[in-house]
Amino acid sequence: MTRFLLERPRTLVSLSFFAERYESAKSSISEDLTILKRTFQERGTGLLETLPGAAGGARFIPYILKEDASEYIDYLCKEVSDSHRVMPGGYVYLSDLLGKPEVLRQIGRLIATQYMNQTIDMVLTVSVKGIPIAQAVAEQLNVPFVIARQDGAITDGATVSVNYVSGSSTAIEKMQISKRALPAGSRVLIVDDFVKGGGTISGLASLVRELDCEVAGITVFGEGRFNGERQSENFTSLLHVETLQSESEPIRATPGNYMHRVFGNER
Amino acid sequence: MTRFLLERPRTLVSLSFFAERYESAKSSISEDLTILKRTFQERGTGLLETLPGAAGGARFIPYILKEDASEYIDYLCKEVSDSHRVMPGGYVYLSDLLGKPEVLRQIGRLIATQYMNQTIDMVLTVSVKGIPIAQAVAEQLNVPFVIARQDGAITDGATVSVNYVSGSSTAIEKMQISKRALPAGSRVLIVDDFVKGGGTISGLASLVRELDCEVAGITVFGEGRFNGERQSENFTSLLHVETLQSESEPIRATPGNYMHRVFGNER
Repeated sequence: MTRFLLERPRTLVSLSFFAERYESAKSSISEDLTILKRTFQERGTGLLETLPGAAGGARFIPYILKEDASEYIDYLCKEVSDSHRVMPGGYVYLSDLLGKPEVLRQIGRLIATQYMNQTIDMVLTVSVKGIPIAQAVAEQLNVPFVIARQDGAITDGATVSVNYVSGSSTAIEKMQISKRALPAGSRVLIVDDFVKGGGTISGLASLVRELDCEVAGITVFGEGRFNGERQSENFTSLLHVETLQSESEPIRATPGNYMHRVFGNER
Repeated sequence: MTRFLLERPRTLVSLSFFAERYESAKSSISEDLTILKRTFQERGTGLLETLPGAAGGARFIPYILKEDASEYIDYLCKEVSDSHRVMPGGYVYLSDLLGKPEVLRQIGRLIATQYMNQTIDMVLTVSVKGIPIAQAVAEQLNVPFVIARQDGAITDGATVSVNYVSGSSTAIEKMQISKRALPAGSRVLIVDDFVKGGGTISGLASLVRELDCEVAGITVFGEGRFNGERQSENFTSLLHVETLQSESEPIRATPGNYMHRVFGNER
């Protein structure tokens, strides 16, 4: 039952279904759900919403507790603040970190917690490095994710495209998405790995609006320093990363605005 | 305990750890593990290896049963055999299917089952469409995944690159990977979304060898029809997909060689 609920976040599973599956009385299933609810709460796994009555059931909503969130963000800061990650041009090598299932699962939980009380129909990102984050968040929210592309993928059929100014290079670029990817009226969560000037996430937000959808929120893994005015929308960042401030401290990652936005002022 | 083990496939968790975490005697933890083992087996969730003794513990190895695998592949065939998926040039639109967490989880289980008794250190794919599959498999195997790129990602530092012949277009292309992504001696599982001529997976295999690693296996979601000789390595496919055979049946997906390779001859 634990496994079944964990694998289907935000889905209501009826008492009758469990009763049939485990050949048990609804009353004992109901008792077991109460124990599970308490355990999930004690362990900070998430919320098990139980709906009473004959048509009732249970729905698992994953979240992360404030202390665990703060601790995990501190861990990420420590991991990112490694001088070996600094690449030419002040870029940061994150591919190893964002290729670890356990790290992605925790990032997914962090971001899903922010939107746990909202309706999200889709997660949207742009290829390549945003994809693992989008997939991790989509898993926790149990909704599909969609990938916009900077190159033209000929297998996507009819597309919608927007031009955007890449903030870090001030060049004009183009990104596109398959027309059939986002049904009109969807509430879309935008995620990406890293924001500098903010042009990319602005472009993603334009794509969402072009397809008559709504931007439900924007959250990124890392936010870099940017000299100049950000063109971008309002967004949440897990980390704030500054590179090449000095020879002795080539990279410094600190918590982004996530804790403040999700859990309020005090840490 | 269920959650803890499910989230850490192929990791040995000691009895002492559980005893401390749940403030219980090792003997009762041990009894609970026995129940869990039986439940996992009955439900086809996977294998719970239990190691006896003071230094013992439990390790969860996800797998899918033969009947469930066959049924899921049939379901995928039905989903893919939808005439709306045919794109110009005989390409197949799969982005919606490969953007659904539940579908990816099952594909991950299928592929992980094939390699459950082998050491796999890394999963490798090439951007863009192979990424969700790589991430899904990496999650079930609990190992990192690595992304090779066709464009040059300037944030990857020093790279190794190979040229390969794209089978479907016969053009020479180049792909590259960060040198630090694959430690020498790693056993690497290659996955991708679709194989036509096989040039891409041959290129990935070359990258693996260039970095003094070993190809542990190659599995793809779909295998297309190819007129001519495949240049590729030996690989496993979940589905076999033919497009534009006739006006009335523009696309037909049938099971690939997965069932035969993983579960033996008879279906």
